[in-house]
Amino acid sequence: MSGILVVGSVALDSVRTTAGKSVEALGGSATYFALAASYFADVALVGVVGEDFPRAHRHTLERRGVDLSGLKVAKGKTFRWSGRYGKDASIAKTLATDLNVFKNFKPVLSEAQRRMPVVFLANIDPDLQASVLAQMQSPALVACDTMNYWIDSKPAAIKKLLCKVDVFFSNDQEAMRLTGAPNALQAAEALGALGPAVIVIKKGEHGALMKVGSKFFVFPAYPLARIKDPTGAGDTFAGGFLGSLASMGGPHNDVGRLKRAMAYGTTMASFNVEDFSTRNIEALERELIEERFHDFAERMTVPRVEGLFKGRRAVSA
Amino acid sequence: MSGILVVGSVALDSVRTTAGKSVEALGGSATYFALAASYFADVALVGVVGEDFPRAHRHTLERRGVDLSGLKVAKGKTFRWSGRYGKDASIAKTLATDLNVFKNFKPVLSEAQRRMPVVFLANIDPDLQASVLAQMQSPALVACDTMNYWIDSKPAAIKKLLCKVDVFFSNDQEAMRLTGAPNALQAAEALGALGPAVIVIKKGEHGALMKVGSKFFVFPAYPLARIKDPTGAGDTFAGGFLGSLASMGGPHNDVGRLKRAMAYGTTMASFNVEDFSTRNIEALERELIEERFHDFAERMTVPRVEGLFKGRRAVSA
Repeated sequence: MSGILVVGSVALDSVRTTAGKSVEALGGSATYFALAASYFADVALVGVVGEDFPRAHRHTLERRGVDLSGLKVAKGKTFRWSGRYGKDASIAKTLATDLNVFKNFKPVLSEAQRRMPVVFLANIDPDLQASVLAQMQSPALVACDTMNYWIDSKPAAIKKLLCKVDVFFSNDQEAMRLTGAPNALQAAEALGALGPAVIVIKKGEHGALMKVGSKFFVFPAYPLARIKDPTGAGDTFAGGFLGSLASMGGPHNDVGRLKRAMAYGTTMASFNVEDFSTRNIEALERELIEERFHDFAERMTVPRVEGLFKGRRAVSA
Repeated sequence: MSGILVVGSVALDSVRTTAGKSVEALGGSATYFALAASYFADVALVGVVGEDFPRAHRHTLERRGVDLSGLKVAKGKTFRWSGRYGKDASIAKTLATDLNVFKNFKPVLSEAQRRMPVVFLANIDPDLQASVLAQMQSPALVACDTMNYWIDSKPAAIKKLLCKVDVFFSNDQEAMRLTGAPNALQAAEALGALGPAVIVIKKGEHGALMKVGSKFFVFPAYPLARIKDPTGAGDTFAGGFLGSLASMGGPHNDVGRLKRAMAYGTTMASFNVEDFSTRNIEALERELIEERFHDFAERMTVPRVEGLFKGRRAVSA
């Protein structure tokens, strides 16, 4: 009932942060999304890797039940990314991007994939995102993400895609860049005007903002004093958000469900940044997820007390 | 029962933002704090102005019931600050600071002021803050704020003061500067180790973080797409926080009360930034405050649903 199709990158990441490093570890937008969503829903991944893609990485996804029938193995090398984070974990410095087999990625969906009810178009070329969407048979929920590279090179294609999208994920810098808005809230307004009913703007350590209709919901990040590797946090957030939303059933535009999805996205992203690569989200316990979800929700709950002002002497104009 | 003494600056501010400007408008840390706190508790202000301080500004404070018997009028001119905010409203560019009569500010408390149960030491010279505190007779709650100028010039004096303080307010940049921590959460940990049971770190548009014991509570800012003037938001936050906390009575270290205080601080700060100077917080309706407080709390409330995972087929390692 809650199958999610994700189309995006599967990569080998080499990352250095103040907490250490990882070398040719499992990465990619589709990978992070699929692992996070797998705790809530059935996930099918469409992507491409090279002949050098380690069996161990494939098993990591399979152990989470991710359907890899759409993960093509092409002649050549797997997409590689290497980056470095300084003291400010919100800024990734890209050291190298080798697209390799990803350069010629042209996803063609199977019959079963075309009929899946929920699709997440991770940050690939917006023209490819549109071509995937065109292959889908009336999905119930369409979500996508993008990145600065496409915002700078193909802004018109992104905007055209957005009118066919229900939930748009973006980070705050990208959202402001795409819209020219001076802050995340105005960027969300401008993005909403392009079509998506739900805009989710991710702000890293500052949490995430959701616009539903004309109303904003702002959630902080789960408070972690130490993080190891922020790589993939945005896609993990999206996976927790869409996975939980899909699993809730019912109308996807219900504000209560969307707020729960925000909290699950926040929860999954917080697990992700606690270790390198996908280490911390590839073998989570459901109980741990629920526990942190409830802890997060509880911390933000402001106890209601009637009549705070009661008994105060009148001080008025 | 809930009297608050505030010691700090009363100023004439000239501010330019992308939304317009104000000229020699009512400002100063004690002013913003006192106005915000006045909706919750009795407030007595200790400060100094020059002979040129406009009667209208004095009346603005008096109309909110603020006790100005401690506002000394000294020979000379009132403290003036002028600044400018660009597109990024979180960064104030100071154009001029004229301390004037504030340069020789040496607060001496009256008998009644010494006996007040709650004191807020706004961002003045930490040695002056300590001298005020030394005059107090066993206050139930001591809170203070500081600023970069004192962090750079008198860090030892601030740290010495902190061991006598219950609630320390700081913005994130200042907290990291004072402690050398790489992020706000670690800064809060380091500040907590210096003495205060409660650390509140204000992050402007990104909300505020509170540390109570070993536990963190992070709240977003109230979502406003357009703000006019961020001047005084931090002191207004502190006024809403301490005013509401004082009015609640009971032990001040109760987490539920402290979370409500965070939400009232957030609420008051959000009103403040919607207009220049003190315009929007000098004549608020209590109903408006309560309405926004509840709206804020409600937006963050994540609906609980039992057994999200129920019925999902097992996907396990």
